[in-house]
Amino acid sequence: MSEIIPHWLTKQAFLAPKQIAIETKEGDKITFLELNEKSEQFAKKLASSGVTNGAHVGIFSTNNVSMVIAIHALSYLGAVSVMLNTKLTKEELHYQISDGKVRTVLACDSLGPSIRQMNFPVDVKTFTDIDKQQESEVTLLQEINLDDAFTIIYTSGTTGFPKGVVHTFGNHWWSATGSALNLGLRAEDKWLAALPIFHVSGLSIFIRSAIYGMPVYLLEKFDEKNVHEAIMYREVTIVSIVTVMLQRLINLLEEGGNRYPPSFRCMLLGGGPAPEPLLEKAKKRNIPVFQSYGMTETASQIVTLSPEDALNKIGSAGKPLFPAQLKINSQNNDQVGEILVKGPMVTKGYFNNSDATKKAVANGWLATGDLGYVDQSGFLYVVDRRKDLIISGGENIYPSEIESVLSGMDEVKEVGVVGKNDDTWGKVPVAFIVGNSTLTEEACIAYAANYLAKYKLPKQIYFIDKLPRNASNKLVRASLLELLS
Amino acid sequence: MSEIIPHWLTKQAFLAPKQIAIETKEGDKITFLELNEKSEQFAKKLASSGVTNGAHVGIFSTNNVSMVIAIHALSYLGAVSVMLNTKLTKEELHYQISDGKVRTVLACDSLGPSIRQMNFPVDVKTFTDIDKQQESEVTLLQEINLDDAFTIIYTSGTTGFPKGVVHTFGNHWWSATGSALNLGLRAEDKWLAALPIFHVSGLSIFIRSAIYGMPVYLLEKFDEKNVHEAIMYREVTIVSIVTVMLQRLINLLEEGGNRYPPSFRCMLLGGGPAPEPLLEKAKKRNIPVFQSYGMTETASQIVTLSPEDALNKIGSAGKPLFPAQLKINSQNNDQVGEILVKGPMVTKGYFNNSDATKKAVANGWLATGDLGYVDQSGFLYVVDRRKDLIISGGENIYPSEIESVLSGMDEVKEVGVVGKNDDTWGKVPVAFIVGNSTLTEEACIAYAANYLAKYKLPKQIYFIDKLPRNASNKLVRASLLELLS
Repeated sequence: MSEIIPHWLTKQAFLAPKQIAIETKEGDKITFLELNEKSEQFAKKLASSGVTNGAHVGIFSTNNVSMVIAIHALSYLGAVSVMLNTKLTKEELHYQISDGKVRTVLACDSLGPSIRQMNFPVDVKTFTDIDKQQESEVTLLQEINLDDAFTIIYTSGTTGFPKGVVHTFGNHWWSATGSALNLGLRAEDKWLAALPIFHVSGLSIFIRSAIYGMPVYLLEKFDEKNVHEAIMYREVTIVSIVTVMLQRLINLLEEGGNRYPPSFRCMLLGGGPAPEPLLEKAKKRNIPVFQSYGMTETASQIVTLSPEDALNKIGSAGKPLFPAQLKINSQNNDQVGEILVKGPMVTKGYFNNSDATKKAVANGWLATGDLGYVDQSGFLYVVDRRKDLIISGGENIYPSEIESVLSGMDEVKEVGVVGKNDDTWGKVPVAFIVGNSTLTEEACIAYAANYLAKYKLPKQIYFIDKLPRNASNKLVRASLLELLS
Repeated sequence: MSEIIPHWLTKQAFLAPKQIAIETKEGDKITFLELNEKSEQFAKKLASSGVTNGAHVGIFSTNNVSMVIAIHALSYLGAVSVMLNTKLTKEELHYQISDGKVRTVLACDSLGPSIRQMNFPVDVKTFTDIDKQQESEVTLLQEINLDDAFTIIYTSGTTGFPKGVVHTFGNHWWSATGSALNLGLRAEDKWLAALPIFHVSGLSIFIRSAIYGMPVYLLEKFDEKNVHEAIMYREVTIVSIVTVMLQRLINLLEEGGNRYPPSFRCMLLGGGPAPEPLLEKAKKRNIPVFQSYGMTETASQIVTLSPEDALNKIGSAGKPLFPAQLKINSQNNDQVGEILVKGPMVTKGYFNNSDATKKAVANGWLATGDLGYVDQSGFLYVVDRRKDLIISGGENIYPSEIESVLSGMDEVKEVGVVGKNDDTWGKVPVAFIVGNSTLTEEACIAYAANYLAKYKLPKQIYFIDKLPRNASNKLVRASLLELLS
């Protein structure tokens, strides 16, 4: 049955009013009581601007306190936050806004002008615009039904258009409690958020904060010096990062010849597997790295490896969190097959896309599209990401999306995209093109930039005579990778 | 919607196979893997003895590891454990077994003969009887549906017969996670269980253990020396106790002139309010006392007061746990009225007793029958326990139950029972009787002993001419109390 709990932010403000909810590098601090009051005020102002229960409201913002307030505020109205990636192009944003039935977009002040310029058929308001409104007398929700939708975050798939992953309050609740059962919960915990809040990895930190009563140390973006500083001198105990950042943090530690304070207890590592030499380096520096595996559909990590096992289970993502289950779609779990996961943190489906939902979720089991196996002790090894997924600095890039864009050029006959190893980003996309001899690399990239976020643009274009294809005429990306080596 | 999670014991055995699940004073230790294996084996043997999915199986046992195994084993079969209080009389047990539709009773070896002698129309098996069985090839449940029934525990009410509180797996899950969000969760935690496991206060410790991956230090019964020893020398970090025990523990500390180790972090105090001088004493000795309020229907504590607030909120039970809500049935929360609670740890109702359920639960709110108020900061003060409830050494005693029994004596015309203050037990029941002059105290108590557990027998009988009654001819217990003072 549907479980009802008190609204998590109201509850935390009641239990621990003076506890710090968010602090920033600049020294700003906001308590749970203040965060609650500001969120409720903002909700009443949003109501004055016409946002109602059930509305889908886009959030287009860099990491900042106002963004967190806006997301909580929408939950008080029973409206759904559609988290927009600020790196996307106009085309990409247009698709998500339209598919997600977004009627209003809330933008941080610095990004307001740019999204207004895009002329979407939506009401664009900056946080400051809303702040200037009167508070309406709307009744705010003081209870949460865990089955209700809270956020929608778009994720690209192997084929077709991006899909809007619907997260219920329950998905976030179970993710937060599942993480606490794994990592423990200490009164002195402080979680650093440097990942974008428009990704579930960043967003989930603020939900944990409300549920645990735990301060978040908020950075506008990842900057290794600021992260290093926060761990060394600001009592941060837990950090969520992606592999590319770990390397830079280790460099800083090595330069200084020092170690993190013993109170620092968890470097939660997501966004692709960490290379063994990097883990060895981390171990030498006593950095407690928890490797993890998750995706938007699982509301953040669903499989995590503790530091004790990090080096004797090199390459493993760990075991599924307490409320989660995992199996491999193969004859035996120890043979490679598609990874399936199940649990109350897993999305019930994609917004307004029952076909995609049916394809991905059956009997509660989500087919991740990733390939992997489980060893005798139950540790998961991810062998291959979702059909050729390129993870570049923590962002997911699907080759098919880039191929589809480049195919739109008149001079292009065929195109294949793969991820090339890169010291800084892990992987970067590169494209193989069969096309007219007049075609230049610059022209291709300029064209693609009209449609694709910068991080998705191929870093290199190779012109070839013919793409490698198998008997069924399907592109063989593995052969393209061989051309690179 | 119904949430499905992996079976909690199987899951913990998978995540932390070598972690200690239970240790005893005698030095016996059992890991989660062993506990899981033994429980699954026991389940298969129970299946051989005819226990099937949905069966109601009585548990009649002192605190011991086999009892915990039996309870887990029943959950693997989808059978429901009906927890029987071993202090009850034959009459009382008969009622619960019959009302609870119990067909099989599992008894610890020492209590097997006594319950067999009672000749109930049920199949009585000792744990050893079951152990001798072959394992059947039954399929064990490897998933838990949180909406399914897990245990039934009888509780007496203000009127009528005891009622079977049904706890779903979800009630226990939410209670455990709600407690963790309040107390935190540390890898070094070890919870001492000295309260009877047939009460929800004792049982819930073992559910938390399975969910947290936390060792329980199990005592067969409360003995202050053993508890003291466990805190001082066995790395116990959390203890659940009732008020009467706290006094004895403080005495032991004072005798030794020492303090608990700093790793000891929580003395969770239930079963009635603690007197101020006792709290002062505890504070002087740096004992971190967490006062709490709860009942069988709430699957253990639902309101808890942290030590920081213990002395400036003397008499308060604290604030409702994170997933719980509380309100007072009066004009304002700060006026005395009946305490209502709501949350996913609260029972959905009584077994086979929709009348009692309807009376107690409306729209998810449970009417506790207790009176209280909430101060401006949201702290609950319990003013009066469920209509004259007598809490004696942590056991609940309802005056109406004793009155009903004594009324059955031919020589008794009228009877009124109240709780008298007692240095050792907090309260003890005493009876006021209007009856024939031939009646003696001994005869009354001997008669009552046929029907009532020993702890419910009046400690004193006062013979009087007339009971105090109000205009509606209802007994005024407050006036009886005045006669005692």
